[in-house]
Amino acid sequence: MKIVLIGSGNVATHLGKAFSISGHDILQVFSNTEVNAKALATILKCEFTNDMDKIIPNADVYFIALKDDAIEGFTNKFRCLGKVIIHTSASLPMDVLKKTSNDYGVLYPLQTFNKMMKLDLTNIPIFIEANNDKSKKVVTLLAMGISNQVIELTSDQRLTLHIAAVFANNFTNHLYKIADDILYASGLEFDILKPLIKETVDKVMSNKPANVQTGPASRQDDKTIKKHLELLKNFPSYKPIYELLSESIEKQSK
Amino acid sequence: MKIVLIGSGNVATHLGKAFSISGHDILQVFSNTEVNAKALATILKCEFTNDMDKIIPNADVYFIALKDDAIEGFTNKFRCLGKVIIHTSASLPMDVLKKTSNDYGVLYPLQTFNKMMKLDLTNIPIFIEANNDKSKKVVTLLAMGISNQVIELTSDQRLTLHIAAVFANNFTNHLYKIADDILYASGLEFDILKPLIKETVDKVMSNKPANVQTGPASRQDDKTIKKHLELLKNFPSYKPIYELLSESIEKQSK
Repeated sequence: MKIVLIGSGNVATHLGKAFSISGHDILQVFSNTEVNAKALATILKCEFTNDMDKIIPNADVYFIALKDDAIEGFTNKFRCLGKVIIHTSASLPMDVLKKTSNDYGVLYPLQTFNKMMKLDLTNIPIFIEANNDKSKKVVTLLAMGISNQVIELTSDQRLTLHIAAVFANNFTNHLYKIADDILYASGLEFDILKPLIKETVDKVMSNKPANVQTGPASRQDDKTIKKHLELLKNFPSYKPIYELLSESIEKQSK
Repeated sequence: MKIVLIGSGNVATHLGKAFSISGHDILQVFSNTEVNAKALATILKCEFTNDMDKIIPNADVYFIALKDDAIEGFTNKFRCLGKVIIHTSASLPMDVLKKTSNDYGVLYPLQTFNKMMKLDLTNIPIFIEANNDKSKKVVTLLAMGISNQVIELTSDQRLTLHIAAVFANNFTNHLYKIADDILYASGLEFDILKPLIKETVDKVMSNKPANVQTGPASRQDDKTIKKHLELLKNFPSYKPIYELLSESIEKQSK
């Protein structure tokens, strides 16, 4: 399929490459910032523009990989009747695309896109949604080309999934950061926690998290919790987090 | 070395087996509950007792693997002058053993002990402390027999490490549980998060957690956060956790 890529950030870059590798033609990259459009177009060996009026009209797919705020701005102006238009946002409903075309959908890879990211998306689940058979065929074809796990979700389910991912990914990473800070203050390296972190994750790969909860809060070991809170006086921003999470675990262990 | 094992729970079981495999003699298991003492003694092929007065006096090491509360009760009564006594608690200082002997120490494996646990402790870091050269030699010998990562820590550092481990292990597991609950309510499986969870952990194996933070809070995407909080009204216990962790991330991303 012939694709115009709207956007030039991490997601546009990684998905653009992946579409290209899976055999599609990226015709053009659009970005408001010409230098960014050009940079990605150079990687993808295609045209580029920062002028919305010069977006190539004869592609099969207009693939929007912009930040949420920018998507709304773009779809207020852009029209591509007869073509399929797709966004890749977790939190925006599919219908934000309604005014741009009759055929639209969503392709959302559940991945934490950043500089370190591996290019291989094969084992990354991709969540799709489409408003009719035509767009569903196109979204499915694109998704199947880059991942072997393609799952249909509604917009509401996608938002829920995103929230769950914030807990399981963004928030756990922040807890690692807190652990790092606490260790650092005692002259200890984050490295010494790595075997335990691996083990914690290994366990939930084959068990329900609720069934493998351990620690002072889950055994209602209030003496230990008290000692921890005493020491956490030196970390006034982390103490309330310790308290709230411990209470939440205790509530569920009763 | 000849060891008497005080305790019959998970930690006693796993360490007892590990000491035995590494060539030490477990002479006896003591537990207040005879049936538990017997069960572990059967596994370790040794004697057992639930009578403190019948604890064999001629061992080299008295190894206490009891819950923290039980340790204090035990050490109030037990004496083994001339022998080395060791506890395995994260949160109790080494000195709780002072009254039992002149030679004492701590051997603390950083591991989440439960039924699913693998027996191989080789790659589990073990943190040790000792009050003099004699006990240090004994504690080191025991630790080196079961792990290839033996690290000396003070009691204060061990407590700090334990707090860090609560954040990195117990609390992250609880966040997985929350994610599971949220997904379940939308008819989604926890399985779909597993690739992302693996990726999150892989990243901190080679990066500082602070450097790989992603998500709405780290990019101060207040619109998305607002949408998430709106939906989290259905999860009144989880909403404050989302808010507090998001605030903490935002504070550090500024």
